[in-house]
Amino acid sequence: MSNATPKTAITPRRDEDFPEWYQQVIRAAELAEPSDVRGCMVIRPWGYGIWENMQRQLDGMLRATSHRNAYFPLFIPLSYFAKEAEHVEGFAKECAVVTHTRLEVDADGKMKPASPLTEPLVIRPTSETIIGASYARWVRSYRDLPILINQWANVVRWEMRPRLFLRTTEFLWQEGHTVHETEAEARAEARLILDIYERFARDHLALPVFTGEKSDSERFPGAVQTLTIEAMVQDRKAIQAGTSHFLGQNFSRASGIQFQNRDGKQEFGWTTSWGVTTRLVGTVVMMHSDDDGAVLPPRIAPTQIVILPITPKEQTRAAVLEACDKVAARLSDTRYAGAPIEVLVDRRDLGGGVKNWEWIKKGVPLRVEIGPRDLEKNSVELSRRDQSVKAKESMPMEEFVARAPEILTSIQESLYARAQKFRDANTRTIDSKKDFYDFFTSKSGAKPEIHGGFARAHWNGSREIEEQIKNDLKVTIRVIPLEDSSEHGQCIFTGEPSARRVIWAKAY
Amino acid sequence: MSNATPKTAITPRRDEDFPEWYQQVIRAAELAEPSDVRGCMVIRPWGYGIWENMQRQLDGMLRATSHRNAYFPLFIPLSYFAKEAEHVEGFAKECAVVTHTRLEVDADGKMKPASPLTEPLVIRPTSETIIGASYARWVRSYRDLPILINQWANVVRWEMRPRLFLRTTEFLWQEGHTVHETEAEARAEARLILDIYERFARDHLALPVFTGEKSDSERFPGAVQTLTIEAMVQDRKAIQAGTSHFLGQNFSRASGIQFQNRDGKQEFGWTTSWGVTTRLVGTVVMMHSDDDGAVLPPRIAPTQIVILPITPKEQTRAAVLEACDKVAARLSDTRYAGAPIEVLVDRRDLGGGVKNWEWIKKGVPLRVEIGPRDLEKNSVELSRRDQSVKAKESMPMEEFVARAPEILTSIQESLYARAQKFRDANTRTIDSKKDFYDFFTSKSGAKPEIHGGFARAHWNGSREIEEQIKNDLKVTIRVIPLEDSSEHGQCIFTGEPSARRVIWAKAY
Repeated sequence: MSNATPKTAITPRRDEDFPEWYQQVIRAAELAEPSDVRGCMVIRPWGYGIWENMQRQLDGMLRATSHRNAYFPLFIPLSYFAKEAEHVEGFAKECAVVTHTRLEVDADGKMKPASPLTEPLVIRPTSETIIGASYARWVRSYRDLPILINQWANVVRWEMRPRLFLRTTEFLWQEGHTVHETEAEARAEARLILDIYERFARDHLALPVFTGEKSDSERFPGAVQTLTIEAMVQDRKAIQAGTSHFLGQNFSRASGIQFQNRDGKQEFGWTTSWGVTTRLVGTVVMMHSDDDGAVLPPRIAPTQIVILPITPKEQTRAAVLEACDKVAARLSDTRYAGAPIEVLVDRRDLGGGVKNWEWIKKGVPLRVEIGPRDLEKNSVELSRRDQSVKAKESMPMEEFVARAPEILTSIQESLYARAQKFRDANTRTIDSKKDFYDFFTSKSGAKPEIHGGFARAHWNGSREIEEQIKNDLKVTIRVIPLEDSSEHGQCIFTGEPSARRVIWAKAY
Repeated sequence: MSNATPKTAITPRRDEDFPEWYQQVIRAAELAEPSDVRGCMVIRPWGYGIWENMQRQLDGMLRATSHRNAYFPLFIPLSYFAKEAEHVEGFAKECAVVTHTRLEVDADGKMKPASPLTEPLVIRPTSETIIGASYARWVRSYRDLPILINQWANVVRWEMRPRLFLRTTEFLWQEGHTVHETEAEARAEARLILDIYERFARDHLALPVFTGEKSDSERFPGAVQTLTIEAMVQDRKAIQAGTSHFLGQNFSRASGIQFQNRDGKQEFGWTTSWGVTTRLVGTVVMMHSDDDGAVLPPRIAPTQIVILPITPKEQTRAAVLEACDKVAARLSDTRYAGAPIEVLVDRRDLGGGVKNWEWIKKGVPLRVEIGPRDLEKNSVELSRRDQSVKAKESMPMEEFVARAPEILTSIQESLYARAQKFRDANTRTIDSKKDFYDFFTSKSGAKPEIHGGFARAHWNGSREIEEQIKNDLKVTIRVIPLEDSSEHGQCIFTGEPSARRVIWAKAY
């Protein structure tokens, strides 16, 4: 079979060229494509449908914990942005800047920007400073606290090495920004959000994640503490999938967010910020997909069940289509994970094999074929996307309609279990520098699969060691676990005492 | 009572200074506020909640008609944008332009934009040209059509005279962009969307609108035909509340959207675009609110029912709060207009009058007081926001819970009926130039109320007449009705034959 026809697997396979396989899955599943604007992508309806599901579900979790959405300006005056020194330094290289308004035709007949602005405007790479300006107006007394606001928005960070979903100049995200009366409350908020992100990743995206703190060198510019969830995808690299920052009083000092506390004294607010982005779509694809295309967890798939009518003969066609529509209508009336099942009958006049492969590549969790012979037996043919594309199961129609939510749940759970098994198999406890270097170094002749992953190793807390490991191996500390269950030990690089093991990996 | 306390009506009244009244309602209801970035507003949670409801409900109508959401880049390369001549001319004055990336500290220690871009990027004022570039890649054959895509996004049009919600430099909107095989299909799509907008305005926003076509001078730059819905607000001015454009082949020629038609020939696609914006929030406020504050239609109010516990004595406090929570829980389990009722118990430790006035100003459709005496009688005290703030109705608790959806429906309908009555009372059929000028000219001594509104008058179709009326009276043609029910007649300005009456008004 030719690779040019759609009736085939993805080329190359994952084990041949993982980055190129990823690009091909994104393309074959029609999730997104590069645009002519450097680093900016077009999110196609199938990819955007995944993001909409993520949005709706996470938004529900944020609402349930008293957060409300609002919207703040896209533009940040340069003077605002520069208020927090570490912050502006951290983002300076990635800023896109509006310097002019209006276009006019110049002497050569070319269209050019016409009116320079008095003060340039930075397009938000993140909104702490512009939102802080509002909060400074809103907060007067401890009675005005906490402020618990979230924003769904686009942000821009100029990207020299873009990769669809994972790293794009413009991306979509939610950014929460809260103000609290005390340090303890703000720390608790940052932790609450970390827990929500972990739960969201686990239950909705089927992503097992490690949670904890970032080292100083990986902290958000301006934060006191950055908490993170880190996933491992199929090339055994880490992806930072969401972060929650305790900002102390750094940004409230910069923006002037002051309140009269219970003792009648003026005090700066304690703030947090936190976000997840469209990067999650890429993470899900890298985690669950296979050599045949995308594999989507049922909870976030835009279509959960596709029904493929098999109509070889004209005289049975009407009856088959009618049966398909009936099954679809009953599934639409059935709820899975709190919402009606999203089902689609693919009536297009294309070959059955072409359609089947299209949905395989798009990663629809469950494909259901109904043809004349199924009608006779009053049954359907099921294909689960978490199993081989050739595996089919025949099931009585009634039973299928009744069991559909349970089957979707089973697919969701199997994806999580597979991801967890993979991660655990590729997470090593390492106790010597030599083993550490061996783990992250591909030996000639040895298959790359047996190297790399997450290494749990003791570290003395020094930034120099981090720097050296990064230079030697491109490996960084992904997360410092928060739990106090860790054993004390010796740093494997220096022999110095270490309070806990930290998790190291190569990362996106 | 002092105007400085929150326990008062809005100052000034509508009939004293309508524009200032509007600003004060927006502020008092905490819907939005200006930001320090010229023309950009902050949409506060209460205002954003209204927009979220509008989004969800309109999105459902668009999905039900086979439209799907996607996301395209914020940036448009200047060369793309300039492809359609009329289009770039129409938007040139309003463009914000990114010319640089990166910030660096200059010799004076000042932060400055550092790296100039080879090609400047326009921040989308609308996305026909950037989306057209994708469509040109996607469309090959008539089998790829129609493309029915919508985008929820922010856009930027530099605004010299901003007004919260109605005219802001950055605003939020949905923009649909479709491609069709034939002119007839594209025209039918533009018409379908007009019908959806009309229905959405009527059933969700309680806004009666006139629908029809724009005159050439008010057409979208680059369109063949612009359809519009026009509302009349309480100062009897028109607000254009949504537009649907038939673009012919203008933009497909500019972007190269070509397909092989059924005869095997290459043909340019027929496209449409259409949108509604956060301006709708301002329109709703201007239409329904009163001298006490905002009045929100129940279907789009973020909170539909607020329960105010009256707790004068400590010993009855717990029982009152418990009763409030019980009623709230039962209301949350009740559906209104297809969704659970949004209810909130305001437990804050503030004076009852202060809280009551806060919710009056925010425009919550139904306020419910429950105090010790109500508990004894097992009843509640209802205040409908569409009635006087002093009107209260006592109702048995059980009856109230059962009838809540019906009461919300009644409020929604009464707002619509009131708006329609107002519009009809201020729409005149005018048959002479003198009457027309009188209608739009405020006479000394005469109350301004009795002048202005919508004038239905014959017009010969000439652009010069439009221009003259605009210069003389600041009055424009808001809409040319599509229905063929109109009588033929004579242009009231020239005496020339006219095929139909058109609707004239002052407009936002």
